[in-house]
Amino acid sequence: MSAAAYALRETVIRSATKEVVIGHDRPFCIIGERINPTGRKVFQEALRAGDLSLVTKDVAAQVAGGADVLDVNMGVPLTDEAELLEKAIRLVQAHTDLPVCIDSSVVDALEAGLAAYQGRALVNSVTAEDERMEQILPLVKKYDAAVIALPNDADEIPMDWEKRIELVDKIVRVATQDYGIAIDDIVIDPLAMPIGADGSVGQSALTTIREIKARWGLNMTCGASNVSFGMPGRHAINAAWLPLAMGAGLTSAIMDARTPQVVESVRAADLLLGHDEWGGTWIRRYRAKQAAEQAAAAAGSGA
Amino acid sequence: MSAAAYALRETVIRSATKEVVIGHDRPFCIIGERINPTGRKVFQEALRAGDLSLVTKDVAAQVAGGADVLDVNMGVPLTDEAELLEKAIRLVQAHTDLPVCIDSSVVDALEAGLAAYQGRALVNSVTAEDERMEQILPLVKKYDAAVIALPNDADEIPMDWEKRIELVDKIVRVATQDYGIAIDDIVIDPLAMPIGADGSVGQSALTTIREIKARWGLNMTCGASNVSFGMPGRHAINAAWLPLAMGAGLTSAIMDARTPQVVESVRAADLLLGHDEWGGTWIRRYRAKQAAEQAAAAAGSGA
Repeated sequence: MSAAAYALRETVIRSATKEVVIGHDRPFCIIGERINPTGRKVFQEALRAGDLSLVTKDVAAQVAGGADVLDVNMGVPLTDEAELLEKAIRLVQAHTDLPVCIDSSVVDALEAGLAAYQGRALVNSVTAEDERMEQILPLVKKYDAAVIALPNDADEIPMDWEKRIELVDKIVRVATQDYGIAIDDIVIDPLAMPIGADGSVGQSALTTIREIKARWGLNMTCGASNVSFGMPGRHAINAAWLPLAMGAGLTSAIMDARTPQVVESVRAADLLLGHDEWGGTWIRRYRAKQAAEQAAAAAGSGA
Repeated sequence: MSAAAYALRETVIRSATKEVVIGHDRPFCIIGERINPTGRKVFQEALRAGDLSLVTKDVAAQVAGGADVLDVNMGVPLTDEAELLEKAIRLVQAHTDLPVCIDSSVVDALEAGLAAYQGRALVNSVTAEDERMEQILPLVKKYDAAVIALPNDADEIPMDWEKRIELVDKIVRVATQDYGIAIDDIVIDPLAMPIGADGSVGQSALTTIREIKARWGLNMTCGASNVSFGMPGRHAINAAWLPLAMGAGLTSAIMDARTPQVVESVRAADLLLGHDEWGGTWIRRYRAKQAAEQAAAAAGSGA
């Protein structure tokens, strides 16, 4: 591996007033994932009726939990997702200065969201499929965004890391050469699959992460809870997964910031990897937690 | 790196009836550390008075917490440590079938412990100092034991990984060539120092671990709580440290098995690394925890 091939990338995203840089020498980027009606019937019905009040509640919870970026998805069947996502983006930006990850499988919705967004967004997501790249990468370029890319194609989600590396190579080549997207703006999802179905998927994902870091120095993100799908004790599995993946080179995750055990694990790994100078963030978070516990105890004893 | 240089080692230790194999493709080996009077005044006074009842209590707690091996240390100032360690080893072996790690800085005590021990022990520890190797390695060979070795010499605990690798090289060379100890029986402590004093020590330890695995495939162990010394929220830091270190190649740790958060983190990392087939251990532990919680809740509501 030549030194020239190995540059560690930085992905800059912004709201109107706040910048977040995802990078290998920086604190891990927590992308709060809960602003999403998938599997939430009450939320879906409210959105169909034009009521977006749950969005602001979810934003507040993710911010309070320590999210660095917010993933916003408005995928509700039988609605105009473009219109809904545009509204949600404006609403989210009225309530927080955190940058946003615009999440949709509908191209029109992505464009509506990008057009409404103030700042430099992260787009979630493109794959290595030719048609998806042709649809989404021009939008990423047009709106000067960054993009999450999954190394799967129309045929399959490849289980072996070598095939994933081939597809990352294709994505990087097409995005940079055909669409003029900077390599720093490509964030790869290494595809961490459920461990309960196949005990080897953790090692496959870790090898994929190490290889992507070594070959391109790209930033990477993944759904933090995918690995534990179907298993009991999911928070504890996710809390062990992130330090493992961070040690290999994962720089971000899409996760529910309301789970203190998993957020704490990420911040501890930041400390241990030397990405939290003098433990400043760790100690500040610990004191805030202590103060909250004391306040709760005092309220309890006063009742 | 040639394929020949890279063999993953297995360290076999035994009690009279039970075998534990430490290895890179196996579940992590938890060496329960609490059977040790260091810093425990009441325990020290009891031991001086010849009362070893706290030893059996500590053994039971470490076994209940999920230890695979028990570290036994009887370092009490102003006592005959050899006599005390010999008694403790016999007592521990009367109460558990787990193999033992015999822990002392006193050579006579190590020998008394080894002579009393039924099985194949792990000796804790030797360093790269010539005098220590001359004293301890013959005992390791004589009693057919395995040994934990720390890559420091009389001058210093080296902070850079390159110097540690040099000292590991010296230990491996002397132990195998001069004393005929099998390379599989050398377990290296990569020296994880407190992160609060220096934010780079986590990365140094991780690099040391990766290099030792790549060069010799040796097993490795460390004191799991050293990294968090002086910081608040130590359990959470230790719980993130072990998956990070396991991902790099750590195969064992000396730790307090009474801390469920840290034991759980180790077993989750085993699952994620593919060392817990079908999640059998994970699911069994989860069910036992649930049953214990339900029993506690039932007892509470009945009171």
